[in-house]
Amino acid sequence: MAEVVAQADRRSEGIVINDDWPGYSLDLFSYPAHYSGDLDSVIIPHGVIMDRTERLARNIMDDLGDHDIVVLCVLKGGYQFCADLVERIKALSRNSNRTIPMRVHFIRLRSYLNDQSTKDLHILGAEDLSFLAGKNVLIVEVSQPCFCCFLSVLQNGLIVYTLS
Amino acid sequence: MAEVVAQADRRSEGIVINDDWPGYSLDLFSYPAHYSGDLDSVIIPHGVIMDRTERLARNIMDDLGDHDIVVLCVLKGGYQFCADLVERIKALSRNSNRTIPMRVHFIRLRSYLNDQSTKDLHILGAEDLSFLAGKNVLIVEVSQPCFCCFLSVLQNGLIVYTLS
Amino acid sequence: MAEVVAQADRRSEGIVINDDWPGYSLDLFSYPAHYSGDLDSVIIPHGVIMDRTERLARNIMDDLGDHDIVVLCVLKGGYQFCADLVERIKALSRNSNRTIPMRVHFIRLRSYLNDQSTKDLHILGAEDLSFLAGKNVLIVEVSQPCFCCFLSVLQNGLIVYTLS
Amino acid sequence: MAEVVAQADRRSEGIVINDDWPGYSLDLFSYPAHYSGDLDSVIIPHGVIMDRTERLARNIMDDLGDHDIVVLCVLKGGYQFCADLVERIKALSRNSNRTIPMRVHFIRLRSYLNDQSTKDLHILGAEDLSFLAGKNVLIVEVSQPCFCCFLSVLQNGLIVYTLS
Repeated sequence: MAEVVAQADRRSEGIVINDDWPGYSLDLFSYPAHYSGDLDSVIIPHGVIMDRTERLARNIMDDLGDHDIVVLCVLKGGYQFCADLVERIKALSRNSNRTIPMRVHFIRLRSYLNDQSTKDLHILGAEDLSFLAGKNVLIVEVSQPCFCCFLSVLQNGLIVYTLS
Repeated sequence: MAEVVAQADRRSEGIVINDDWPGYSLDLFSYPAHYSGDLDSVIIPHGVIMDRTERLARNIMDDLGDHDIVVLCVLKGGYQFCADLVERIKALSRNSNRTIPMRVHFIRLRSYLNDQSTKDLHILGAEDLSFLAGKNVLIVEVSQPCFCCFLSVLQNGLIVYTLS
Repeated sequence: MAEVVAQADRRSEGIVINDDWPGYSLDLFSYPAHYSGDLDSVIIPHGVIMDRTERLARNIMDDLGDHDIVVLCVLKGGYQFCADLVERIKALSRNSNRTIPMRVHFIRLRSYLNDQSTKDLHILGAEDLSFLAGKNVLIVEVSQPCFCCFLSVLQNGLIVYTLS
Repeated sequence: MAEVVAQADRRSEGIVINDDWPGYSLDLFSYPAHYSGDLDSVIIPHGVIMDRTERLARNIMDDLGDHDIVVLCVLKGGYQFCADLVERIKALSRNSNRTIPMRVHFIRLRSYLNDQSTKDLHILGAEDLSFLAGKNVLIVEVSQPCFCCFLSVLQNGLIVYTLS
């Protein structure tokens, strides 16, 4: 598995956005009318995320092809990205001789308990997660300020994929 | 709101598949290699679901445009369909003068309790759902044998959209 | 190359539409408003053509991967299908270790000359096509009543792919 | 029509790429294997062009909705962009109450004649273009160094849309 980690290490660290980048002008793209007034510019166009998702799917396919994986989607933020990523992996799977059987599970995290902020993350509405033991688990999460990221916990190692 | 219900009633009941329809030959479409051996034919190609989803998004936009809605996605089955549908509604929203502000929430249902089957549905991992009171709620669910369906609970009425 | 022809022969003959199939109800799909009144039903939804195009791209990749090809797009009918097909082949090409370098050329055909119908097809606006000699040429054409079809003329053989 | 021109004038001039922008790292995106070695970086990701195409389609719909147009696609460079743009306009057309009936025609240009470079552009393989008289014509062209651009010749005016 060390080899796999090394392989991921050689990859780019994601999209770097300079602090002085003013973003794209709003009238270059379509956006919902009820956002106008609240938006100044577009930092990462939707299509760039789609292109990055396509490449991440390929990286995952290259690293994990022919292994079963469990996709753990962290709600609520991660669900659209997870759906796009899973669709891309499926597209690769159905058009090649390699395949990644996937099951998707959902969890919610929160960092407070009984209205008290804690330093620990609590898994909300969790059923027993013991079925993950010994599995290849792909955790899909969207967090700030790193726009979109997810990581793959392998049985014997860890690969971090970062979208941007 | 009665008018809205009537409008929905005039619409088609979804895709009707005759019992004697043998389906499309498998080699007409791409599908994951690990399904081969388990599949006989394709009954509803993926693209038909995409086309239907586009039309449902338009119907929802026509019925609910300029209203806030809460999308209640029923996991696990509904999440991919929900993601596709929400994306389509957003596409309509950002390319027209009408808009549907949406928030998406997730619930899980099960029909058994403490390993005992019951006739009632239980909402799993539910936080308090009282925030739905007085809202326009779009419940997105995939159930068998009706391949994909969802229904919209309006404040003063009910519209049922059926994909197939 | 005989092997390739045999491989293509084993494939399905495309989508068969029975004469008594009434088609899908119009209100199941979105279509341009200016078509209403002229349409009775939908025989082949757009998404089915997209799904078939994805599979044809895969078949072409399987048959011709790592060969250069010249795509000969027959205008005007074939251009949208050609664009979709080339995009699909490129998607496979950029996500696998195999590749199909492609150049796209355009021709127009007509079956009449100086307002006189003839039994021969004439190539309109043709530059010299001698550059095709010895090349693998993929002719992309849409003809009636076979909704969409195209054929691949290989150096030493012929493969016919039919969409529907 | 002066109003339309003014409206277009208020829009952004397209995507501006600074001379010192090094581009995106190649391993952020998928690209055909046979390009590796020839590419240093990605300047405009494919998804950005798709997003811009969606917005251009909307601008065209806003300016020309409910008018018939003739789309004049300049081969060879413009055909993929033209296919994407026309598909986007159709998507808007079939999901709104407005519509743009379109016919697509194809021309080729060259700036040399009998192997002699000239300062004039010659239309290759041209049938009689007199049918364009009095029509709203949307010319779709891809030219360098302006990556993708096209312009719309109206009966009584001119709108220039620039993708980047």
